[in-house]
Amino acid sequence: MSRGQFITFEGTEGVGKSTQLATARAALEGAGKAVMVTREPGGTPMAEAIRELLLAPRDEPVNELTELLLMFAARAQHLHSRILPALEAGAWVLCDRFTDATYAYQGGGRGVPRERIAALEQLVQGDIRPDHVILLDAPVDVGMARARHRSEPDRFELEKAAFFQRIRDCYLARAREYPMRYHIVDASRSLEEVSGQVTGLIRRLADGEPCKTQL
Amino acid sequence: MSRGQFITFEGTEGVGKSTQLATARAALEGAGKAVMVTREPGGTPMAEAIRELLLAPRDEPVNELTELLLMFAARAQHLHSRILPALEAGAWVLCDRFTDATYAYQGGGRGVPRERIAALEQLVQGDIRPDHVILLDAPVDVGMARARHRSEPDRFELEKAAFFQRIRDCYLARAREYPMRYHIVDASRSLEEVSGQVTGLIRRLADGEPCKTQL
Repeated sequence: MSRGQFITFEGTEGVGKSTQLATARAALEGAGKAVMVTREPGGTPMAEAIRELLLAPRDEPVNELTELLLMFAARAQHLHSRILPALEAGAWVLCDRFTDATYAYQGGGRGVPRERIAALEQLVQGDIRPDHVILLDAPVDVGMARARHRSEPDRFELEKAAFFQRIRDCYLARAREYPMRYHIVDASRSLEEVSGQVTGLIRRLADGEPCKTQL
Repeated sequence: MSRGQFITFEGTEGVGKSTQLATARAALEGAGKAVMVTREPGGTPMAEAIRELLLAPRDEPVNELTELLLMFAARAQHLHSRILPALEAGAWVLCDRFTDATYAYQGGGRGVPRERIAALEQLVQGDIRPDHVILLDAPVDVGMARARHRSEPDRFELEKAAFFQRIRDCYLARAREYPMRYHIVDASRSLEEVSGQVTGLIRRLADGEPCKTQL
């Protein structure tokens, strides 16, 4: 049995990652592949416990390094105890966010030096990188408007447009830096068009066809 | 107000760290110093929450890197939000274990490569190291016999003599490597003698006297 492929879904809020993960899963299963869908931070009970620590509101300001180390602690657990065994067993792994999100959110969004993230990436992953990163890209106002339909906008969210812009810029810069790995999907189009693009891309990957990186 | 000093207490189980931390605190307060006593892993609510994650029994085997990253996540929070501010405010900080324990337990005891620990030490601490490490040293059988008086021996504990020997050896190797920082106290002696040595050492540090490193 051949090793599965490791495909991650990235993008800012409201670009439709959950929907497109489901689309990709259906396309892969339709092509006869075993599929594991998972998410970061999380993916194992221990990693989910770390996720809860990260997300819990608390009075104590959390040090930037503490947050970064917790992200990578969860990632080490998820990668080594769940993702790699699944890939070895032949499954295709679809993951909602991975290390590219750390570069985009902690690095681009919050200004954590890129070398810090790279040092932890090297420590935890060695040479392991996703085989493909599907970047669902849309202008920040499009994603935020969609996210608002899910819940009431809050002041925090409204103030974050500049923050999300830095995140989007970082994702796009990484897509230019790693063109063989990144696939940019225009997520500002209709759901049918986006799903059609993702399905086509996934089918080509499942068929082992070489893929143009920029759709 | 001058910066306080950062003093850590290290050693294997049953060597009397808690008792000697109390002895040192009394000696420092007797010398008119402000003192903060704390412990690792832990020391802040966030870091204590990470400590609970580390110590909680769980079915899932915890990846070695996950454990190491959690230790340093707690340490980053403890160091930057509690220890450094206290030192800057002029307090002397007494801490039950610090990074030397990571080298001894995870490195010496469990075989985590030293370079991994050093990479995280550099990331989290930069050039910050304890001003003084008080190593309470005793043959492993002495410490284990004392620890047994506190609770019933279990098979796990009895099997760990070789593990504790590697930890002791690592501590002693580090004491040789960093003689200006490490102070070895012979913890196999009577409580009165050990407390007397610790009190004498702490008084000399409080008086700003140069200290012989090996008592």
